[in-house]
Amino acid sequence: MKCLGALNKIKIILCRPSHPGNIGSVARAMKNMGLNNLVLVQPKTFPSDQAEALAAGANDVLKKAKVFDSLDAALSGVIYVTGASCRKRDLSPKTLICKDAVAEIIGEIHKNGEVALVFGNERNGLTAEEALKCNVLSDIPSSKDYPSLNISHAVQIFCYELFCQASRIESIGGSPNAEYSRYEELGFFLETFRQCMENTGFLKPKHKGKVVERLERLFRRARLEKEEMDILLGFFKTLQ
Amino acid sequence: MKCLGALNKIKIILCRPSHPGNIGSVARAMKNMGLNNLVLVQPKTFPSDQAEALAAGANDVLKKAKVFDSLDAALSGVIYVTGASCRKRDLSPKTLICKDAVAEIIGEIHKNGEVALVFGNERNGLTAEEALKCNVLSDIPSSKDYPSLNISHAVQIFCYELFCQASRIESIGGSPNAEYSRYEELGFFLETFRQCMENTGFLKPKHKGKVVERLERLFRRARLEKEEMDILLGFFKTLQ
Repeated sequence: MKCLGALNKIKIILCRPSHPGNIGSVARAMKNMGLNNLVLVQPKTFPSDQAEALAAGANDVLKKAKVFDSLDAALSGVIYVTGASCRKRDLSPKTLICKDAVAEIIGEIHKNGEVALVFGNERNGLTAEEALKCNVLSDIPSSKDYPSLNISHAVQIFCYELFCQASRIESIGGSPNAEYSRYEELGFFLETFRQCMENTGFLKPKHKGKVVERLERLFRRARLEKEEMDILLGFFKTLQ
Repeated sequence: MKCLGALNKIKIILCRPSHPGNIGSVARAMKNMGLNNLVLVQPKTFPSDQAEALAAGANDVLKKAKVFDSLDAALSGVIYVTGASCRKRDLSPKTLICKDAVAEIIGEIHKNGEVALVFGNERNGLTAEEALKCNVLSDIPSSKDYPSLNISHAVQIFCYELFCQASRIESIGGSPNAEYSRYEELGFFLETFRQCMENTGFLKPKHKGKVVERLERLFRRARLEKEEMDILLGFFKTLQ
């Protein structure tokens, strides 16, 4: 029960949704599986009658949905970000199938801080920039002939896996020992690191290549603990 | 691969769907997971532009969908019927959660004959009469606060489980030994049995109670092999 109750710590974030009906269908799919924390980044139309109609008995989820101007703002306070994406990318975070990604999310929800599951726009999915903000990407197994799921159906499958896996666990053992860095703290860290690399002459503004992106990918994957981050920040300060 | 290819032996049957958009969304959900055998029983509106629009890249599934006047007709030739239902009933077939029901379906698709997964009307689900035509009922785990999924989302979860479980199996071992009775053959058997019970005076037309329904439930659960059925039919003939 403890673990099922913790499902509402999971933010479902929709980036730039264009069809209001999908927002309503997502709200219903979430509530069906015990989630109620919906976040919208730059929705084309919200609120709307169509979203209300398709939410059916989940209007309360729509009503308390939060709207943000940027994914950065939506991720503030979050310690672990999973992005739903089936696209192959050059510089991609670790990618897990849905079931395994959900197992990792379940492992995070007893820690101190929120967890987010991010979905891209209906037509194009997550942009490369949005994907890089994630600790992990996750893919739903599907037919090669037609792998593109409707967004509310993709949310339904993730929420179904979350509900099933959370139902199997009474409560997660072990103490929430380490304090993890939050999304915005890592953003500050990465920016400090970048400035430091420029100031020391290591990074030439005209020849940056993919250095900054590679480091972002590394540190999001590594899940920096606060103490580790403080050490590195102290080191950068010394270099200035 | 062999097992994934066999997914198109599974008929997805929608009983009395009332919203044409849902039919389109179901077609897409199916094709996303490698299924393409859609069957409609008394659809309120079909074909329709709304179904086409929501099917998106799955218009071929809509185009080859078959329409029937009754569930009996739709089930002709089928050897194993799973009904999607979350309702508690007095006289219910065995009920399994989605994942376990799908494991049983996967066990059936290498046998000689088709397999069906039946969904009820959007508002009320399967009727008691429709549920009794099933060998097994299956329920999707969901929140007690709001357990009612949109029909296309329920289809999506079943098809996702089918795809994932079929992907794990290269091909199912063992020979398809026993010849199972088909849906319409069992219908004939049950009707013969009923007449026999009336003719012998066992069953009084005015005091039938739930005897007929209980026997239907028993024999659908038992999955009669053809030889067994022939034995019993021979026995009934002797009694006439």
